[in-house]
Amino acid sequence: MLQLPAYAAQCEERVHAPGVTEEQIRDRFMSTDIRREPMSLKAYIESVIPALMNDSTAVSCSRQIGHMTGSLPHYMPPLAELVTAMQQNVVKTETAKAATFLEKQVVACLHRLIFKCDAAFYDTLLRDTETLSGMVTSGGTTANIIGLWIARNGALGPDLAGGFAGVEQAGLLAAALHYGYRGAVIVGSALMHYSLKKAADLLGIGVQGLVPIPYDEHFRVNVDELERKVLECKSKNVCVLAIVGIAGATETGSVDDLQALAAVARRHSVHFHVDAAWGGPCLFSKAMAPTLVGIESADTVTIDGHKQLFMPMGCGMLMLRDPNKVRLVAKTASYIIRKGSNDLGRFTLEGSRPGNAFYMHANLACLGSIGYERLMDRSARICRYMAKVLHSTQEFEVMLKPMMNILLYRYLPMPVREKLRGANPSYHGLSDAEWEEIDQANISLQERQKADGKTFVSRTTVYSPRCRRSIVALRVVIGNPLTEEADIDQVISEQLRITSGESSDLTHSDSSGQLHWRALHDSQQDKCGRHYWERMSSNAKLFFLEDSAGF
Amino acid sequence: MLQLPAYAAQCEERVHAPGVTEEQIRDRFMSTDIRREPMSLKAYIESVIPALMNDSTAVSCSRQIGHMTGSLPHYMPPLAELVTAMQQNVVKTETAKAATFLEKQVVACLHRLIFKCDAAFYDTLLRDTETLSGMVTSGGTTANIIGLWIARNGALGPDLAGGFAGVEQAGLLAAALHYGYRGAVIVGSALMHYSLKKAADLLGIGVQGLVPIPYDEHFRVNVDELERKVLECKSKNVCVLAIVGIAGATETGSVDDLQALAAVARRHSVHFHVDAAWGGPCLFSKAMAPTLVGIESADTVTIDGHKQLFMPMGCGMLMLRDPNKVRLVAKTASYIIRKGSNDLGRFTLEGSRPGNAFYMHANLACLGSIGYERLMDRSARICRYMAKVLHSTQEFEVMLKPMMNILLYRYLPMPVREKLRGANPSYHGLSDAEWEEIDQANISLQERQKADGKTFVSRTTVYSPRCRRSIVALRVVIGNPLTEEADIDQVISEQLRITSGESSDLTHSDSSGQLHWRALHDSQQDKCGRHYWERMSSNAKLFFLEDSAGF
Repeated sequence: MLQLPAYAAQCEERVHAPGVTEEQIRDRFMSTDIRREPMSLKAYIESVIPALMNDSTAVSCSRQIGHMTGSLPHYMPPLAELVTAMQQNVVKTETAKAATFLEKQVVACLHRLIFKCDAAFYDTLLRDTETLSGMVTSGGTTANIIGLWIARNGALGPDLAGGFAGVEQAGLLAAALHYGYRGAVIVGSALMHYSLKKAADLLGIGVQGLVPIPYDEHFRVNVDELERKVLECKSKNVCVLAIVGIAGATETGSVDDLQALAAVARRHSVHFHVDAAWGGPCLFSKAMAPTLVGIESADTVTIDGHKQLFMPMGCGMLMLRDPNKVRLVAKTASYIIRKGSNDLGRFTLEGSRPGNAFYMHANLACLGSIGYERLMDRSARICRYMAKVLHSTQEFEVMLKPMMNILLYRYLPMPVREKLRGANPSYHGLSDAEWEEIDQANISLQERQKADGKTFVSRTTVYSPRCRRSIVALRVVIGNPLTEEADIDQVISEQLRITSGESSDLTHSDSSGQLHWRALHDSQQDKCGRHYWERMSSNAKLFFLEDSAGF
Repeated sequence: MLQLPAYAAQCEERVHAPGVTEEQIRDRFMSTDIRREPMSLKAYIESVIPALMNDSTAVSCSRQIGHMTGSLPHYMPPLAELVTAMQQNVVKTETAKAATFLEKQVVACLHRLIFKCDAAFYDTLLRDTETLSGMVTSGGTTANIIGLWIARNGALGPDLAGGFAGVEQAGLLAAALHYGYRGAVIVGSALMHYSLKKAADLLGIGVQGLVPIPYDEHFRVNVDELERKVLECKSKNVCVLAIVGIAGATETGSVDDLQALAAVARRHSVHFHVDAAWGGPCLFSKAMAPTLVGIESADTVTIDGHKQLFMPMGCGMLMLRDPNKVRLVAKTASYIIRKGSNDLGRFTLEGSRPGNAFYMHANLACLGSIGYERLMDRSARICRYMAKVLHSTQEFEVMLKPMMNILLYRYLPMPVREKLRGANPSYHGLSDAEWEEIDQANISLQERQKADGKTFVSRTTVYSPRCRRSIVALRVVIGNPLTEEADIDQVISEQLRITSGESSDLTHSDSSGQLHWRALHDSQQDKCGRHYWERMSSNAKLFFLEDSAGF
């Protein structure tokens, strides 16, 4: 118990404890004996919890800018305690009398944010037991699976006149036979999240049924090529189950031309699914919403709650433009989910589920749309700042102009740097060995930075249309409202230190002030997001250890 | 904030507030306006939270014995606060440096409980990055889906010599073509949980691909008929993807003859999946474990964490006897889940996930196997008590001898009661109108009892082999360690009051003392479970409102 505050303090100082390998941690979790006699709670707290926490990742550290997991509003942990104590199960109103309707309301609010239907639509929707405008899921992967499940069951639906019960009842083989299809595919950018592979496998079309379409230099899918692929499939009697558009690609933050994709989908009567797991909340921002135009034409949309909606880990959402389509996947059971009831369980992939919509309900109230807007605008600003700083250096190359708040860049070692930074920079002059050298330099840099534990960016291997090959790149996600310009300076400073072979001289927040890009720091920017979040953030303290008077 | 303690107190007195309809609650959650300006947290707590909580279901009320959702150990809500504050994401070690290994350990502990492999097995397992003995999921539905996904991908796997990449890559149509199958099915008891329907649909074999086999008078699947169906499928070139055994049917608590099913699966080289979502934890009990013999031969097993493992809502587990089989569904992505890493995300259906294994880790330590054993034995004892009490009455008919802690019974209205309770009771003398009358009486009784809000049992429609027809029955699940004999007395007392047309005279815990079955109450029974849980239970207080000194 005594160590807990120490853990909380560490969040501020480092991403994780350095010098502890995964193997060393693994060795602490090797026993598979289940003890017979209970351990006292006190002993458990004193012995187990600190050992676990001290080597956890401080995901909310403001210099952990490599993953989509950041900090939460300060009321989330106590709210999680409340949700757990209430133990509502939204599979059925009998175990979630009020939480059921709260979930329907929250989902409808987000439906309105995306699809902007009129008041009458929502009034009817929320009184109707046979439709749903969306559902809360355990995450974005589940939401993507459900979106494509709905797409498949819609594309290969019942043909009552023809005596076919639909793929939902009769399966894929019968569906292909009935409709004369030789196969079925899902098409979308080669940057589609790997959860789409899971979906394609699960849904029975195989990973090869997920057809990746090339993207352009801005990492947006080539819509013409996508349409050609759709036409080619049709000509071969291959059913196109869905077109997937990306609103915030995991690796690049790029957003496909959703309007153009929607038009293709409409022309060919194909289901249009938008994976807005990361980017969906940009709709709250007047500045960023135009990037997502076309999302309102999607049939289904994935938005992650535990990313930029700032819900705790384990919250996703799948939204349906047409709430009737939820019936394409509905199931009933006589003992639990009767037709005509308000029970959510008959429409959701998951059965027993916690009342996670409560977190979103609290955020909608306590952040408000203006809070979300400021948070979105703020992280985009920090991302632009980082791109600007990197671009001003000789050492780094920014791989694309960020569309939202994800940045892809790489370190250029000497002498490659000189070749690419000259008057007429060209990739063509690089030998295979030099390409390999750049990749290796970035792998070494990222691994070293990760091992040091003070700052963190992630790493990926991605095809670059400009480089005309797959490259290793560093990836930054600005999702944590605690991250500010000074943190960015430190991350870059740390990378320069590592690549220059210097030993660590990072002495926290003031060291970066001397760096040459300091002048770029616009201290006049709106700091509202940061200040707001500091008041709201959970990363500095663990509330159940304190008196609750402040809550 | 002031109302919160009031809510907590209500848990003890009622299941939910009476006289409030679902429509009335719905009307409170109709607005889809997202407010622009944030509400203060104080205002939110004071206005929204009580309104939500006052009409929630007190699932942990000791007289709510109708669903599988009960009370939790008292340390669960604060632990949930900690898990939320830590915000680990076990998709990847970079966001869950220690929690990843904790999950692998906890899952291996449960693997050992089921499959009892030797120490060397677990030592190798926990060092290996390319296998997994199981995974934590968002619930039992997801676990069942994963189990059957593994089954399907194994049955229709790659045939490298034949140039076939497997269903995982090439899809179901290509698999059927390659292997010459006309279809694919999953066979199991007609009592299979409705999540299996979802799995069959998702996996592309359609709901009709889920073949329900009749069960006997004890509600256990007819193994001979099941084997005949397997043979029939084989003779028709239909691939049997899996045989499903049930360990604790949702409606009846019955356990299939898992040993016999395992033998059938072995004889025909079919994947054997056991749905032990409810019943799995009976393995902790020396008295009950023999019921589950054969489970150790399963290829995959579903166990729900949020049922009898007393984890918070949203926790399931899928266990694999052979940890290598996890590769049948593995997926990778260059930016996040690299081959050879310890990242759990490449093997799990879900991507970003919370560190829910922590809850199980705490329970294994703080309840111990003896704690689980006592809790299992205790609930089975209460269930037998209820069956005995009901059987001793004229008014009720117990539909099967409970195998664990789920009870199925029904009320018999007059004059049907006399016909069935005579010297030679027989269902054959009943007319269709009389069958209908019994059903209607049970529907009315359950609805009235539910509306009153003081006590709760659930209701189902299930085929009864003894009645040779589908009947409406009342369903009781004894899963809450707070439920004791006096609560059972009150539930039955309330039902008798309702059916006799009396007005409510239930004045809490002492009224039941006068009932005629009071003599059956064995007050000498081991109360350890109850006392243990009272110390541990969360339902009496919401911890974040209190000083944490006691934690």
